[in-house]
Amino acid sequence: MQVAIMCLLLCAFLVLSSCSAHVLALKPHLFKHRVSRPADVDIVYKTYYLDQKIDHFGFLENGTFKQRYLVADQHWHNEGGPILFYTGNEGDIAWFCNNTGFMWDVAEELGAMLVFAEHRYYGESMPFGAESYSDAKHLNYLSSEQALADFAVLIRYLKESWPATRRSAVIAIGGSYGGMLAAWFRMKYPHVVAGALAASAPIWQFPGMVDCGVFYKIVTDDFSRAGKRCSSSIRSSWKAIDKMASTDKGLQWLSSEFSLCAPLTKGSDLKSWLQETWVNLAMVDYPYKANFLQPLPAWPIKVVCQNLQFSPDVPEEKLLHGVAEAAKVYYNYTGDASCLNISQSATGNLGMMGWFYQACTEMVMPMCTDGVQDMFEPLGWSFQAFSDECFSMFGVRPRPDWAEVMYGGKAIGAHSNIIFSNGGLDPWSGGGVLQSLSDSLVAIWIPEGAHHLDLRYNNEYDPHSVLQARQQEVALIKQWVKQWGAQDHVEL
Amino acid sequence: MQVAIMCLLLCAFLVLSSCSAHVLALKPHLFKHRVSRPADVDIVYKTYYLDQKIDHFGFLENGTFKQRYLVADQHWHNEGGPILFYTGNEGDIAWFCNNTGFMWDVAEELGAMLVFAEHRYYGESMPFGAESYSDAKHLNYLSSEQALADFAVLIRYLKESWPATRRSAVIAIGGSYGGMLAAWFRMKYPHVVAGALAASAPIWQFPGMVDCGVFYKIVTDDFSRAGKRCSSSIRSSWKAIDKMASTDKGLQWLSSEFSLCAPLTKGSDLKSWLQETWVNLAMVDYPYKANFLQPLPAWPIKVVCQNLQFSPDVPEEKLLHGVAEAAKVYYNYTGDASCLNISQSATGNLGMMGWFYQACTEMVMPMCTDGVQDMFEPLGWSFQAFSDECFSMFGVRPRPDWAEVMYGGKAIGAHSNIIFSNGGLDPWSGGGVLQSLSDSLVAIWIPEGAHHLDLRYNNEYDPHSVLQARQQEVALIKQWVKQWGAQDHVEL
Repeated sequence: MQVAIMCLLLCAFLVLSSCSAHVLALKPHLFKHRVSRPADVDIVYKTYYLDQKIDHFGFLENGTFKQRYLVADQHWHNEGGPILFYTGNEGDIAWFCNNTGFMWDVAEELGAMLVFAEHRYYGESMPFGAESYSDAKHLNYLSSEQALADFAVLIRYLKESWPATRRSAVIAIGGSYGGMLAAWFRMKYPHVVAGALAASAPIWQFPGMVDCGVFYKIVTDDFSRAGKRCSSSIRSSWKAIDKMASTDKGLQWLSSEFSLCAPLTKGSDLKSWLQETWVNLAMVDYPYKANFLQPLPAWPIKVVCQNLQFSPDVPEEKLLHGVAEAAKVYYNYTGDASCLNISQSATGNLGMMGWFYQACTEMVMPMCTDGVQDMFEPLGWSFQAFSDECFSMFGVRPRPDWAEVMYGGKAIGAHSNIIFSNGGLDPWSGGGVLQSLSDSLVAIWIPEGAHHLDLRYNNEYDPHSVLQARQQEVALIKQWVKQWGAQDHVEL
Repeated sequence: MQVAIMCLLLCAFLVLSSCSAHVLALKPHLFKHRVSRPADVDIVYKTYYLDQKIDHFGFLENGTFKQRYLVADQHWHNEGGPILFYTGNEGDIAWFCNNTGFMWDVAEELGAMLVFAEHRYYGESMPFGAESYSDAKHLNYLSSEQALADFAVLIRYLKESWPATRRSAVIAIGGSYGGMLAAWFRMKYPHVVAGALAASAPIWQFPGMVDCGVFYKIVTDDFSRAGKRCSSSIRSSWKAIDKMASTDKGLQWLSSEFSLCAPLTKGSDLKSWLQETWVNLAMVDYPYKANFLQPLPAWPIKVVCQNLQFSPDVPEEKLLHGVAEAAKVYYNYTGDASCLNISQSATGNLGMMGWFYQACTEMVMPMCTDGVQDMFEPLGWSFQAFSDECFSMFGVRPRPDWAEVMYGGKAIGAHSNIIFSNGGLDPWSGGGVLQSLSDSLVAIWIPEGAHHLDLRYNNEYDPHSVLQARQQEVALIKQWVKQWGAQDHVEL
């Protein structure tokens, strides 16, 4: 029971990292499709590696690993130019580098150096090489605290080895889990970073902080808004799948209708995959043709919903045909796919395993559905079941209170210089900071925004709200840089 | 070469913990001698134990240990009364509890609950019982970060299990290393503690932050001020000891003159022990009869220096006789000792081993002497030698930059609500924050104060400066409590 929810929530977040394994293969594809990238912005950077301690918090393990980071300094003003520092999340840093157009767009105006730091256990930054994911012992150093310490050590190293950067203000920037890291980095290391832009960072998606149903409710709202009867059609589809999948003939029919690469053996596999698909669509419901997780049309949920406008008494086959067409908008917009692989995004790759492990330790994010406020099958949140699942997977048990103890939960008012930006379409906004907490803990709301739309390149189809958001973000960054420069800093 | 310096600096800090092993035996003694404790203050508390994770930062080690903490709530105002939380340092918490009179003195005025939390690996709070110090593997969880996490978890637990405390502001209080922890606790967990009183906390006694010679220079100044030719007599004594110790007869003479329990075998042992003695005296040079490390007269350095007023041409035997008499002021003020044991405070006990380990990992505090600005034999600071020493002792190597990366070094201006109090007589003041950094990062200077005099009971012989300091501390604590109450706090 719990597996579905766990998988789903992770995959939802993990879309970012599940792409990491594809990134090399997809790169040309990605470039071909990135209509949002202006022709005059060059993605040119150098790749470096820094020896980092495997364990910052203990001295028994004194080994090191190579942390990858990317640097672009073509627009940097040697004297006083800030460093925009991307706090890498659960995936290949080159992919984040290519998909954080905001930093490239504003580099010149800010005279900024761009640094993209890879998160340990993702991409190339493997503490134990190919053994990194082999067992709980090797995974023991995968945590947000270790990652933040890596970032702090890296910035210290940059400032030591690059004297002209010594007085540079460093601004942490990140999206999604990377946004959480950016915010936490400023909270825990305000001597290292002058401020943080935490885009679509669900720092409150933890036990006791938000209703566990909010995530799927927002997904549902996106579909309800995008087309008449769209979410209700999806709500009806689960039972229809169950019924159809109860016979061999039905399974065959489903396999054919969804153009599956391998024959379907049970209905639940199809349901999990579809649930994940709808969530992913909610995250990437951008106002223009884009290729973040998949090549997609503008406002993809609208396009999807064109196939899902059924009255309650629609015959099951017709309903499921519509669902299959809808899924194909997501998986085969280019028309290149010969079949759909429903195990593709649910099977583990390094990035996915990493986030699984993080969810099974610190990042305990309760999610639930009720089938009433949302369009999914009802499934409650059971910490015990989740914990047992984690124990059987990794031999570790999650600590549900730890993130709150460490990062403060809702009591973060003592901090400063953090922007929490969130989009109204983004299911993760449910766990985000939506109201300013002080003059310098600023919430920015982008009603028409999906998952960290503001971190993407400027685009002619951008809604006014995201343009305004980016303007406000740049203004605040400039203010922090000025503040930092005015301080009587001890260099290094 | 390096050993002496390392030992010395540790013992100096460790006087606190080296007492921990004595504390049970000494307790009645301690009470008998505490003239500074007013008759109307009762030391009554309850002892509790909380199961803490052995490793907060990794999930492989999921074991727990019992952290001891003491609670005194006789003056606590149920509604809104603050919690004064002693961030235990390297020793038995009951001893700190008995020696932090300030908290007992102000409890009633503040309507405060007192909590004294023991630091892991000290006193009774042993993560692996008797095995805790057995090797680097078992010592791996001894760090300031783990200790701070223990404190945060403990406060969360108190607030959860004691509903009336939920809105209580918690004020961290500590002296010496405990003061460093108090300051760092507020920096890293401002959602947990409303403010911190960091008394005699040398948070800048780290590489590159202060001159390595400042500590011994202050010790020397104390002796120079306390008596004519006092420090110069001590400066002359080292060569005299060397000369005397170069013959068997001389060693015999020294053993007898210093009333040593065991015959001296080499002069360097005597010199290390004396150096440590002078340092300890500088720390406890209180204006009244007291028994912090040893039972001592008021202004003990003045009494010591009465035996050390020699002209440069004094015969060696006369000089060394004076030194022996001076040492006896420290070790035998009561007249109860039949002989002096020079290995006593230098040999390991749990507390001492713990601080050794901490100095060999995070707490790298460079110290040096030049024999010109100070009264000691010249000895430079060599990180490499220190590191090798640590490696041979524990199989770990210190990370000299880590404390700065983690805790910000001198760049701590973004934080708030911390008092840094320091005494002009205290050698640790050299590594302290002596000037206010903002309206809420307040430095308090107590010219006539030795090591955290302000944390001791009020005493009729207290200099005006320490009374003023305590007054300012209470006023700031009241302000923080009010601030905390005015916040729209999420309970827990």
